[in-house]
Amino acid sequence: MIQASICTIGDEILIGQIVDTNSAHIAAALEENGIAVRRMLSISDNHEDIVQSLRNELAESDIVITTGGLGPTKDDITKPALAALSGSTTLKTDGRQLQIVHRILSSRGLDVLPVNLAQADVPDKAEVIPNELGTAPVMAFAFEGGKRLYSMPGVPHEALGALPHILEDIRRHFPAAGHILHHSLMVHGIAESALSEKIAAWEASLAEDHIHLAYLPNMLTGIRLRLSTSYGTAEEQEEKINRRIAELKAQLGELVYADQDDCLENTVGRLLKSAGKTVSVAESCTGGEIAHLLTTIAGSSAYFLGSVTSYAVSVKVNVLGVKAETVEKYGVVSAEVAAEMAEGVRKLTGSDFAVSTTGLAGPGGDAANPEGTVWIGVASEAGTVTVKKQFRNDRKRNIERFAAAALNELRKVIERSL
Amino acid sequence: MIQASICTIGDEILIGQIVDTNSAHIAAALEENGIAVRRMLSISDNHEDIVQSLRNELAESDIVITTGGLGPTKDDITKPALAALSGSTTLKTDGRQLQIVHRILSSRGLDVLPVNLAQADVPDKAEVIPNELGTAPVMAFAFEGGKRLYSMPGVPHEALGALPHILEDIRRHFPAAGHILHHSLMVHGIAESALSEKIAAWEASLAEDHIHLAYLPNMLTGIRLRLSTSYGTAEEQEEKINRRIAELKAQLGELVYADQDDCLENTVGRLLKSAGKTVSVAESCTGGEIAHLLTTIAGSSAYFLGSVTSYAVSVKVNVLGVKAETVEKYGVVSAEVAAEMAEGVRKLTGSDFAVSTTGLAGPGGDAANPEGTVWIGVASEAGTVTVKKQFRNDRKRNIERFAAAALNELRKVIERSL
Repeated sequence: MIQASICTIGDEILIGQIVDTNSAHIAAALEENGIAVRRMLSISDNHEDIVQSLRNELAESDIVITTGGLGPTKDDITKPALAALSGSTTLKTDGRQLQIVHRILSSRGLDVLPVNLAQADVPDKAEVIPNELGTAPVMAFAFEGGKRLYSMPGVPHEALGALPHILEDIRRHFPAAGHILHHSLMVHGIAESALSEKIAAWEASLAEDHIHLAYLPNMLTGIRLRLSTSYGTAEEQEEKINRRIAELKAQLGELVYADQDDCLENTVGRLLKSAGKTVSVAESCTGGEIAHLLTTIAGSSAYFLGSVTSYAVSVKVNVLGVKAETVEKYGVVSAEVAAEMAEGVRKLTGSDFAVSTTGLAGPGGDAANPEGTVWIGVASEAGTVTVKKQFRNDRKRNIERFAAAALNELRKVIERSL
Repeated sequence: MIQASICTIGDEILIGQIVDTNSAHIAAALEENGIAVRRMLSISDNHEDIVQSLRNELAESDIVITTGGLGPTKDDITKPALAALSGSTTLKTDGRQLQIVHRILSSRGLDVLPVNLAQADVPDKAEVIPNELGTAPVMAFAFEGGKRLYSMPGVPHEALGALPHILEDIRRHFPAAGHILHHSLMVHGIAESALSEKIAAWEASLAEDHIHLAYLPNMLTGIRLRLSTSYGTAEEQEEKINRRIAELKAQLGELVYADQDDCLENTVGRLLKSAGKTVSVAESCTGGEIAHLLTTIAGSSAYFLGSVTSYAVSVKVNVLGVKAETVEKYGVVSAEVAAEMAEGVRKLTGSDFAVSTTGLAGPGGDAANPEGTVWIGVASEAGTVTVKKQFRNDRKRNIERFAAAALNELRKVIERSL
């Protein structure tokens, strides 16, 4: 298997000021391309350290990807280190990157300073992959034995933007990685162990098709089931994976919310948009998180009308129209209050669907409603359904899981209405 | 300076399934204790790799901290690797950790299996630091030359819980790190470059007191200004730092929102709680994020009454009472609509303070209101103030920055009322 190392360069990571998210994105992309990451490391903005560490990685890995250390300030010495490592003797100006530098700075109304112009200079051995998203170039260097080193900026959106170009170059230079076909299904509302038991027989039969199944769980988006194969022709791969995906969907039914890598808020938005329907939200314990998630999606104003967060009982009663007797009789954390909240916000906004939450994120709770209890209500033309969920996390995580569970119940009601 | 390496063990990080946040927390804590992190690395669950990599780090660093690889499953082989590295010949059962294992599993209503009992076994050369938060022990190992290696679980809340105990052990074994006094001030609403210019003369004078100033910027919480000194006695350190902090507060005035490491939502909560006042929120472009941030704070029900997210104009008019003429005359993204939203939600909920946002998170915008424009309104007994802000990020970041800016404007109005 082709081996890779990922190396971040820069003191911000070593003093703990920023969390390195780039390496995880790069690692996931390499893994999907059949390349094993054997090591990640973070080193400082120090010439000797950079040269020595990268040389060590090149001794053991086929591919080395570095991020960071390419800014216009004097701290950044990655480029001279890469020159030394690659045996470059001069710097050359890359014409395309120079144009990009001019374009980016002028679009921000900034003067082009000599330090900015210098960003388009690269070691003479570098192959430049233009970086349309930033002023620093993306570079590839060839080493003995067909090994390759890639250098890209550390700014996360620039790194993410450069990644597909680097993967293209990797696929071209490392055909041995082969063609791997992946297909993901998103599942929500079942624990990994229960899911694994449910599909055990089916999973055991995958070997005969040379298909590998990965469980990729996430507390919020649920479990991503990823089928992969590198066996056979592209057509054979596609036929087998499609057949297996169909089997899995049939077996899991409503547990599946998307047949690609996706999140619940996007799935809900997609369903509403294509049906031409609208939604509103009434939150208590989730405190605004459901509305926030729905509105992170660009274009959500087409289907999201609004929400009410009713932390105080007076807001539940006066704004949402929950009956004071209901609160008194059943308590705030109850199916009845969840139902009246969802019905109340649906009426208030005139939306087609409405979802509500009332629960205890913690800290604190009692025997009837321990910390982590939530009632979810979903109101629609078809009536109102309520569901109770129990989680065992801290306040912050409970809020996030409540919101994800509520979006999943909403998703199921929308799907049933279609 | 004492040098450290941080090493995460486990395939989940190398395949990009999880982002390593532990290393940043550990690095920040070491840095605050005067210890330089020279390298971070992530390696796989492989015996040879673990032994060889940790041996390499111990050759160059005084302290090595590992996280991960201590779970009850068969994948986890860190403990045998640490035994080999430390020259341990047998495993011993740690009585205190065994009690903790029993307590944790019984509190979760789980049976104690042999794999769980084995978690309390440690290499005979290990010094055990009990881990009250999890079943895996925290271990310290002594090496030649006074070097020390620490091993802790990878589960983030367990790692965070173990960190203070490890730091205590480090301070005891590495007195040369000395006593460093830190004091932070939180600043919001000014760019780092402008702040640096504003306090340049004062900053230059810090050297005479042997005080170091660090700018620790964060897009959401603002800039943390951290004063540090390792010079003089504890009393001298405190006297000098306190005097300098007082000078800085006097110079920065309202730009300072907390004189410790803090966030805006906690500061707003603290102010409201001590004044016995309440708040409500009317959101448009922030979509629920302000309410969500306020309610991440435990105990926020004491002062947060509720919020309305009015994405649709109809909700602005029908629920918040924004006048249709105001929307028509000034447009949705305007000071006038922001003011009426804040006043509307204040009236609706009966809160003392109310904050509102209306803007364009993007993508999209026009000449009058480019993407990243937001109007913020804050209503209180003293009247209503409105402020316009302009950011240049993507949708997600714009929403977060709008919410942070709104909390900051709310904070200033509350402070002025006290």
